[in-house]
Amino acid sequence: MEKGRLLYEGKAKQLFATEDENILFVSYKDSATAFNGEKKEEIDGKGNLNNKITTILFQQLKKNGIESHFVEQISENEQLVRKVEIIPLEVVVRNVAAGSLAKRLGMDEGILLKHPIVEFYYKDDALGDPLLTDAHIELLELAKPEEIEILNRKALDINQVLQPIFKEIGVTLVDFKLEFGKTAKGEILLADEISPDTCRLWDDETNNKLDKDVFRRNLGSLTEVYEIILSRLGGLSK
Amino acid sequence: MEKGRLLYEGKAKQLFATEDENILFVSYKDSATAFNGEKKEEIDGKGNLNNKITTILFQQLKKNGIESHFVEQISENEQLVRKVEIIPLEVVVRNVAAGSLAKRLGMDEGILLKHPIVEFYYKDDALGDPLLTDAHIELLELAKPEEIEILNRKALDINQVLQPIFKEIGVTLVDFKLEFGKTAKGEILLADEISPDTCRLWDDETNNKLDKDVFRRNLGSLTEVYEIILSRLGGLSK
Ligand SMILES: Nc1ncnc2c1ncn2[C@@H]1O[C@H](COP(=O)(O)OP(=O)(O)O)[C@@H](O)[C@H]1O
Ligand SMILES: Nc1ncnc2c1ncn2[C@@H]1O[C@H](COP(=O)(O)OP(=O)(O)O)[C@@H](O)[C@H]1O
Ligand SMILES: [Mg+2]
Ligand SMILES: [Mg+2]
Repeated sequence: MEKGRLLYEGKAKQLFATEDENILFVSYKDSATAFNGEKKEEIDGKGNLNNKITTILFQQLKKNGIESHFVEQISENEQLVRKVEIIPLEVVVRNVAAGSLAKRLGMDEGILLKHPIVEFYYKDDALGDPLLTDAHIELLELAKPEEIEILNRKALDINQVLQPIFKEIGVTLVDFKLEFGKTAKGEILLADEISPDTCRLWDDETNNKLDKDVFRRNLGSLTEVYEIILSRLGGLSK
Repeated sequence: MEKGRLLYEGKAKQLFATEDENILFVSYKDSATAFNGEKKEEIDGKGNLNNKITTILFQQLKKNGIESHFVEQISENEQLVRKVEIIPLEVVVRNVAAGSLAKRLGMDEGILLKHPIVEFYYKDDALGDPLLTDAHIELLELAKPEEIEILNRKALDINQVLQPIFKEIGVTLVDFKLEFGKTAKGEILLADEISPDTCRLWDDETNNKLDKDVFRRNLGSLTEVYEIILSRLGGLSK
């Protein structure tokens, strides 16, 4: 598969065309950003780590019956994916109170939720990715009620697969963000990435944060903790 | 009905006990507050105006089959109401984009929504009254799913009654905030107030704001515009 022209460059990845109009070439960048791009740094090796972790997790999801855009990993920091039209919603699943949920609801960080919850945020950097209710989503025509239901269902199903995968490697999956898109046929498909950039991962033994909060809150070396996740998931960093 | 001891003092009203444990004595204050209490002023006559406007609107709702806590007006700035246990949700109905909705969704103020929407905010000054999704409401156990449905339904029904009442007096009901409570029997009842403090009201001819935005945004005399609303609704200010 040939890498064609650059179609889009985001904060963490570049998308390139391929000969097949239904397939994209994704290149994971070494940039780390937080607080809607306010904090920004180049971190050697980050792209490789997220590419490999995302690859493992999408493969595990597939084994458990959950389809995604993932086609194959083709280099240290590149993968092929099915092209979709991204639904501009950040679909967040939470198992434990942390971050903006803890702040919004006045809960202590670390409280286990009675059951997982799904939240939708508007994927719009200019607006600061605001929280949306179902009524807002329908008003903005971002998704129909039955599509919101599908996103909810899929997000919880993905959580059901990912939670034990992390539990087995001594990590609590506190929360994570998903993006979904529509294929040419209108099917809703899991897309984007699942990596320590998009998950909160807490070490069960040390309680250490093994995710992008290390970068957000200056808690240590990002690549060191991403390496821990990759190696515990059975991946090789080199 | 005797005015008993002060049970609670809020930003806009005082609640007093009466001989009847199911009835409260509400005294409307002359305080105006905005931005979660950051901006604050005493405004002579405001309490009287809100008491009278709320009285008229609760009476109109009753005529249209919608019950509320309202029992009777007993003085310029006082009324008797049924005591309820307030559900700590601010139930907002919106017909036109304005305020936080316009900001959150990046819409121009004044855009007519395709259909009215209902939002829920957590009535918690310390948290800044954050927007809540249904999942948050269930998580915090503020209301059960079927109660959220009742609140939604009642809020839209109230909007269906209030919209034409304001339209007839040349005013667009842009949005408004309701509070509901539970009676001793567990019935969900409309409570609190409906006044220019809790509604956005725009003059259809001049586009002038005839509500608390006059105070929030320093657009003129609050009592002058509240008087306009009261007199157009057929009330007498003295
Ligand atoms: N399968 C896909 N098809 C099309 N676009 C995708 C696909 N998967 C992810 N994207 C999009 O790729 C873009 C680049 O990713 P990223 O750098 O993470 O962007 P962002 O800065 O918006 O987070 C994002 O807009 C993301 O939604
Ligand atoms: N029928 C009722 N029974 C009990 N409490 C009520 C009733 N109606 C309104 N309240 C409560 O009265 C309090 C005083 O009102 P207000 O001054 O507007 O308070 P706030 O500063 O919380 O807005 C509020 O907490 C409101 O929820
Ligand atoms: Mg991204
Ligand atoms: Mg109030």
